[in-house]
Amino acid sequence: MFMKKIINDPHDVVPEMVDGLVRSYPSILEQVPDTLAMVRADKDSMKGKVGIVSGGGSGHEPTHAGFVGKGMLSGAVAGQVFTSPTPDQIYAAIKAVDQGKGVFLVVKNYSGDVMNFDMAKDMAEMDDIEVRRIVVDDDIAVKDSLYTQGRRGVAGTIFMHKVLGAAAQEGASLDDLEKLANAVLPNIKTIAVALSAATVPEAGKPGFELAEDEIEFGVGIHSEPGYRREKLRPSKELVEELLGKLDDEMHLDPNKQYAMLVNGMGATPLMEQYIFAHDTLDQLKAKNITPAFTKVGNYMTSIDMAGISLTLFELADPAWLKALNYPVETVAW
Amino acid sequence: MFMKKIINDPHDVVPEMVDGLVRSYPSILEQVPDTLAMVRADKDSMKGKVGIVSGGGSGHEPTHAGFVGKGMLSGAVAGQVFTSPTPDQIYAAIKAVDQGKGVFLVVKNYSGDVMNFDMAKDMAEMDDIEVRRIVVDDDIAVKDSLYTQGRRGVAGTIFMHKVLGAAAQEGASLDDLEKLANAVLPNIKTIAVALSAATVPEAGKPGFELAEDEIEFGVGIHSEPGYRREKLRPSKELVEELLGKLDDEMHLDPNKQYAMLVNGMGATPLMEQYIFAHDTLDQLKAKNITPAFTKVGNYMTSIDMAGISLTLFELADPAWLKALNYPVETVAW
Repeated sequence: MFMKKIINDPHDVVPEMVDGLVRSYPSILEQVPDTLAMVRADKDSMKGKVGIVSGGGSGHEPTHAGFVGKGMLSGAVAGQVFTSPTPDQIYAAIKAVDQGKGVFLVVKNYSGDVMNFDMAKDMAEMDDIEVRRIVVDDDIAVKDSLYTQGRRGVAGTIFMHKVLGAAAQEGASLDDLEKLANAVLPNIKTIAVALSAATVPEAGKPGFELAEDEIEFGVGIHSEPGYRREKLRPSKELVEELLGKLDDEMHLDPNKQYAMLVNGMGATPLMEQYIFAHDTLDQLKAKNITPAFTKVGNYMTSIDMAGISLTLFELADPAWLKALNYPVETVAW
Repeated sequence: MFMKKIINDPHDVVPEMVDGLVRSYPSILEQVPDTLAMVRADKDSMKGKVGIVSGGGSGHEPTHAGFVGKGMLSGAVAGQVFTSPTPDQIYAAIKAVDQGKGVFLVVKNYSGDVMNFDMAKDMAEMDDIEVRRIVVDDDIAVKDSLYTQGRRGVAGTIFMHKVLGAAAQEGASLDDLEKLANAVLPNIKTIAVALSAATVPEAGKPGFELAEDEIEFGVGIHSEPGYRREKLRPSKELVEELLGKLDDEMHLDPNKQYAMLVNGMGATPLMEQYIFAHDTLDQLKAKNITPAFTKVGNYMTSIDMAGISLTLFELADPAWLKALNYPVETVAW
């Protein structure tokens, strides 16, 4: 099978991508020299504030660097494709954003990420930079998966970025942010459906094969297996399946407020995402729920995978809705 | 061939998509009842200002409705997929945004669009709404094409939206906007490369076929033929071809300022777009040019086509750069 991608040497994908992104948005992003860490170009305006750093394997663009900027992340570290960034690179980002008030890490729940972010935390602490972290595990599809103990961290992570980013910009302490992250975490849940798998450039072929008319529910953002394969069905029925799973988990309640994220996986056009959003809003309305905040687009992708994930975030604290609406200056929010 | 799309009935694609978009962003967009026209939800804040309306066939999401909002378009009209909106629908948008100061239309150069927007203009003028228009024809790939006399209007159209939107927000008159649009138009040039064709839902199959390892330069946003087919080459070489064509046309000059848009066609992931941007910035740098403004992402798509277009906009007037940086409240800018 021929790999049809607009790239140069597959080994150069990540450095070339990071360079292209940073040079395209020089007023927002700066690259830490000799690393794949990116930090806010306006980092002087962060003086006296806690830094927030996220990151992980590449292939999920615009995540994470697209969310670096005023009001959101202070820095992001890009690993190789679908591979955790190394501790020294994460540490470089921590060091670059630290303003003496400590740094908070947002880590998606994959064994490699958790291990490497924790090692970077240790390195920073030896340097007297105080570090705390949250491990996001919003994907309700499966427990324990390829690369993961427990549940995987997926698209809902960007809601975590947003809420913490607003709080940090308003001057929250490291303690405040840790408390906030722990309060927010159990309220964010995500589930996905895939129509095709991603092709990692160095692998040259898709991570799995689906028949021409087949889909898979619950697939992860690194082509990890989901929970069921079947024939493609209309959008309405896909929404019924995914929203049903979220409802089982969250016990959706018309007296509560929710944020909703319809997330495209990379190759699924906005046309399909808007239709899927239409069906989701209809089915929520049938439960007397109208989300207080909605986003639709490619936010946490899986390279060129076709598919959609649906995230719901129960806004248990009204301050979280304000945080979602807080102004930011980023490439991708 | 099986059409693998997240949709319901192919006939319902456009109304469901418009509904999903508007209901996802109710603070930005409002649908004109019983039409596929969308207008700014804050249209009261447009009092005393000229309205700007664009539109065209659906399938180019987030264009055009994604650019409706404070500081940019006042309204957008969605036709059926790859089909011009009807004059009555365009007229409904004009009427909805008119504040007594007239309405300016931004039309992409396709015979159906030009005809229908002109009919809507006539209808509005019979109702004493003054209307002017610009026809955007930024695609340098070919002259006269399927559906087009002269050159096609493609991704560069969003630069036209942005510059006019900023001016209208600042209170420009209909005369001012017409003069501005005519001054801007010859400075925006675009060219594309396709790796695959779009599949229109009602057609059920791609608009053309390319071999597994084949690309086509100069393809339009409705699968109109380009100027050459050949084997896929590395990103750097694709940039050489496209930038070379732009240079032949624009005579790139290090003493001039440029804005650059790398635009994904729908199925091409940001990973590839950032790499393509990296190569473009390198090759511009070799000509001693660093763009003063850059955007990379899916702005003017062709449903699920894989491919990229490159737009350069010569910023002959420094006010145009300010207009590109002017704050907006839209879904997609």
